[in-house]
Amino acid sequence: MREAYHDQLETILEDLVTMTRAVRQATQLATDALMSADAAEAERVIAGDAAVDTMREQIEESSFELLARQQPVAGDLRMLVAALRMVADLERMGDLAVHIAKVARLRYPDPAIPPVMEGTIRQMAEVAEVMVSTAAHVVETRDVDAAMRLEARDEEMDQLRRQSFRTLLGDEWKDGIEPAVDIALLGRYYERIADHAVSMGRRVVYLVTGEHPAPTA
Amino acid sequence: MREAYHDQLETILEDLVTMTRAVRQATQLATDALMSADAAEAERVIAGDAAVDTMREQIEESSFELLARQQPVAGDLRMLVAALRMVADLERMGDLAVHIAKVARLRYPDPAIPPVMEGTIRQMAEVAEVMVSTAAHVVETRDVDAAMRLEARDEEMDQLRRQSFRTLLGDEWKDGIEPAVDIALLGRYYERIADHAVSMGRRVVYLVTGEHPAPTA
Repeated sequence: MREAYHDQLETILEDLVTMTRAVRQATQLATDALMSADAAEAERVIAGDAAVDTMREQIEESSFELLARQQPVAGDLRMLVAALRMVADLERMGDLAVHIAKVARLRYPDPAIPPVMEGTIRQMAEVAEVMVSTAAHVVETRDVDAAMRLEARDEEMDQLRRQSFRTLLGDEWKDGIEPAVDIALLGRYYERIADHAVSMGRRVVYLVTGEHPAPTA
Repeated sequence: MREAYHDQLETILEDLVTMTRAVRQATQLATDALMSADAAEAERVIAGDAAVDTMREQIEESSFELLARQQPVAGDLRMLVAALRMVADLERMGDLAVHIAKVARLRYPDPAIPPVMEGTIRQMAEVAEVMVSTAAHVVETRDVDAAMRLEARDEEMDQLRRQSFRTLLGDEWKDGIEPAVDIALLGRYYERIADHAVSMGRRVVYLVTGEHPAPTA
């Protein structure tokens, strides 16, 4: 019985890692769709979100069942509560990747991002993807140092976002309102993906150390 | 012991209602600050978020303690898990009110919203506030009908958001990039507050009926 119980706990963690990797891939595909104005790729991301939602349901159900049947205490209880929270983070991250894909779809066949902004958006996307990969690694290995590094990466995201606003509001911006609005929202989506990755990292730090890391922002 | 346990459960629900009302007030004050370019009011919302975060910590701690000590099953377990989720919704809603206040602060002493957009933003704010009030009522009374009405209200929010984009991208827009970017993001913040209110409603519906309401979007 205890054996099966620990197997179930282990499976929940493995499923969380799988879900994190699925979200990372969705983010990457959404960025590809955005950068290459690829409507088919955008559709794949949008359709693929159902699979992410199914993963969420499965992990929630397993966690809830374990809570109800095994009545875990201390560390295991903390882990299950953390899993329920991380799965909510991941669902939102999947939704945000869908939002990015929808901008690509909305502007197709035109590219949504004017050349002057391509570099910044690519960098934001890259930082987001690396952060989601790191979150998967952190959940898998409980690597507290890597979790702490997520906060530094998040600062990089904030700087890129400020840079995007400077470009939008500067003299070099000749592309008008529509792409400006798209970019303001896209920046918000990438920033929120990054925030959720930080939040996953903080939950793992709390699981391992029993302490909440001090907020940096 | 059982008595104290049910008192604790009851207190958690009451605290959730109090927190929901605090978030509603923060949303309303943030809108006032935005509409009247009132920097002092904006600062009050920003500073006041610490109290919302403290409520979250307290509710999380009580819920966790109850989970660990009383090992609730069935309905009570579902309620505690729902409380942990709703408290996460509420914390985000508080953060979003802060984001709204920060736009007011950033543009002070100028108003952030050009006259042509005032009506739409006011309506979005009003819909958001009513939805948060309804969420408080739903948590307090478990009124499933009111919870379902949140979804209809959310549709109204989506329509207002589409209307704001039509104005931004239409010929009547003479206010340039900066307010357009602000309004795109403000629309997103109000929309997200509304989404979280819907999500709270759905959690209560699930608690009462044992069934997840079908998603409308």
